[in-house]
Amino acid sequence: MDKKTYDRGLEIRTEVLGKEYVANAMRNVDDFNKPMQELVTEYCWGAVWGREELPRKTRSMLNLAMIGILNRPHELKAHIAGALRNGVTKDEIREIFMQMTIYAGVPAGVDAFRAAREVFAAQEQKP
Amino acid sequence: MDKKTYDRGLEIRTEVLGKEYVANAMRNVDDFNKPMQELVTEYCWGAVWGREELPRKTRSMLNLAMIGILNRPHELKAHIAGALRNGVTKDEIREIFMQMTIYAGVPAGVDAFRAAREVFAAQEQKP
Amino acid sequence: MDKKTYDRGLEIRTEVLGKEYVANAMRNVDDFNKPMQELVTEYCWGAVWGREELPRKTRSMLNLAMIGILNRPHELKAHIAGALRNGVTKDEIREIFMQMTIYAGVPAGVDAFRAAREVFAAQEQKP
Amino acid sequence: MDKKTYDRGLEIRTEVLGKEYVANAMRNVDDFNKPMQELVTEYCWGAVWGREELPRKTRSMLNLAMIGILNRPHELKAHIAGALRNGVTKDEIREIFMQMTIYAGVPAGVDAFRAAREVFAAQEQKP
Amino acid sequence: MDKKTYDRGLEIRTEVLGKEYVANAMRNVDDFNKPMQELVTEYCWGAVWGREELPRKTRSMLNLAMIGILNRPHELKAHIAGALRNGVTKDEIREIFMQMTIYAGVPAGVDAFRAAREVFAAQEQKP
Amino acid sequence: MDKKTYDRGLEIRTEVLGKEYVANAMRNVDDFNKPMQELVTEYCWGAVWGREELPRKTRSMLNLAMIGILNRPHELKAHIAGALRNGVTKDEIREIFMQMTIYAGVPAGVDAFRAAREVFAAQEQKP
Repeated sequence: MDKKTYDRGLEIRTEVLGKEYVANAMRNVDDFNKPMQELVTEYCWGAVWGREELPRKTRSMLNLAMIGILNRPHELKAHIAGALRNGVTKDEIREIFMQMTIYAGVPAGVDAFRAAREVFAAQEQKP
Repeated sequence: MDKKTYDRGLEIRTEVLGKEYVANAMRNVDDFNKPMQELVTEYCWGAVWGREELPRKTRSMLNLAMIGILNRPHELKAHIAGALRNGVTKDEIREIFMQMTIYAGVPAGVDAFRAAREVFAAQEQKP
Repeated sequence: MDKKTYDRGLEIRTEVLGKEYVANAMRNVDDFNKPMQELVTEYCWGAVWGREELPRKTRSMLNLAMIGILNRPHELKAHIAGALRNGVTKDEIREIFMQMTIYAGVPAGVDAFRAAREVFAAQEQKP
Repeated sequence: MDKKTYDRGLEIRTEVLGKEYVANAMRNVDDFNKPMQELVTEYCWGAVWGREELPRKTRSMLNLAMIGILNRPHELKAHIAGALRNGVTKDEIREIFMQMTIYAGVPAGVDAFRAAREVFAAQEQKP
Repeated sequence: MDKKTYDRGLEIRTEVLGKEYVANAMRNVDDFNKPMQELVTEYCWGAVWGREELPRKTRSMLNLAMIGILNRPHELKAHIAGALRNGVTKDEIREIFMQMTIYAGVPAGVDAFRAAREVFAAQEQKP
Repeated sequence: MDKKTYDRGLEIRTEVLGKEYVANAMRNVDDFNKPMQELVTEYCWGAVWGREELPRKTRSMLNLAMIGILNRPHELKAHIAGALRNGVTKDEIREIFMQMTIYAGVPAGVDAFRAAREVFAAQEQKP
């Protein structure tokens, strides 16, 4: 493991997905999933998100389109919240999901709008 | 927007997915999802479902196979109910999902049968 | 193996995909792929296509939508030719692929139209 | 149907997925899904799992990777439990899902680890 | 059809994919694919690309990630060329495909880099 | 980058995919794809293939099933050749692809057999 890349990854992951999300992931680390947590933190968050060549906002926008198509609602919701943290506006989220509707089909789009609605509702209920 | 195509789409969508489904969708329309609701109603339901070249029953049959493969259970259940409304019989639904099992694999088929069972059970519980 | 189901499968496969296609497949049978050829012939063509509950034309229509989404151009072209044999008209093929465009996205639709054009062109060149 | 292949399939299916799972599936058999249950038992469990050329442990390992990619959490959980029955260790399950993360992407991997955690937790709660 | 949306779509499609691409598509229009050409031009290029809420450069970036995952090399290459026209730099294309590698897996990423290489090579050969 | 993991990755990649394949990849390295080559070598081949918890033969078997489903023929062929290098027999390749046929559908299976045939034929033509 490259410790510096890992640390950078943990930092970015926390800034994008939120302290609560990462604290929860860390609390659940056990012998079974530890190597996976490290792999994802180092490579996904450190080695790729850590590259300066794209702003985080753009990376978040790409992720919404990609994870929506990949059909992973749990991850999609985490990244909708992350996108808002990275400065993607609700209007931009709508546009991304409308464009996804065209290229990946109506059911993918409808599911993405449902996920967004759930994330927005959860955030409004927070004190 | 082409108002005539939109209106035709809203009419077909209501006939296929049911008044309740569409009323619920309309109640949830807000600034965020309004352009998406309009896009889907005009293009999916008006511009394509509105074409006369295929009977609605055939369109419903295609949708069951397609949405089953696309792995979108929420939409699949809405279209199983829609297929029954369009005259697709339970026996035909079984055949479609068995054929899907062969071409898209056993897990896709098993999930589609589970979705159908849930739709049938929900309908039997209605007064 | 259930010999009767296999024989029925071979018969249907030949009627749908054409003598030439099946003869070619049979010529290529060797120790490596023989169990696969038998599996596909018995289960896909015998156990499922052999069921009477859906007419072959309907099965072909479903296959165009399914194989288009599954993104397998070689199989798609074989089944476009098979669909024509089973009485699906060119207009119906267009409608199926337009509906697929809406539900599975524009790139899937564009590729399906390209496959259809290639099949039609190949058939026009035959004496 | 080939009765011998079906019987062999039912036996293997029971050994891999467990008596409880298969008893439950059998209890739910009705006119609608009976042909599907028979197809899956004969074709999937008899004609393929019944082949001696790969040990069951290897087949289970392949299934974890495949069903994880196919994004079918219900089936994935049944096959994680089945893999444990077939001698796949927890460490091996982790390795399979880490390799899947590389080839099919992080969201697929994260979802697979979540499914494994749920299966392990359910098993620990059993008396 | 909404003539204004169609015309706007044709204009944008031409600006993004190039005069040559669209002229070629138009030359190939026949009775079979005319309704599809119109649907794609109006719905994809007019009703969605025509929305001002996202700059075209962003839409191109999203498309590279989406069409790469959707595994449609022909469309991907057209949109790599389109992205260059819309001001996406080669460095940005690399970053998008590296991020796609993490979220959708190494084979998807490797194929996208291959497509980019082909597009760049073709452009260098032009006078 | 973790130099040790990268070097280990390059070694394994060469052993699995062959000197020719890796030499070719290295010859094509340029400013555009260098970061990608490094990411794949370190992350895929070093950090995951480099783990001792699964034998390489097992990793190759998993890859055949996964890449077959992911529908990436170019990568699939490279990994069929790699699997033979890692001791997977032709009979085992057949079994993997037959099991994939069941879980991912007939078109995925048929395409995988076609890829295997091409790899075998290319190898027989080598002096």
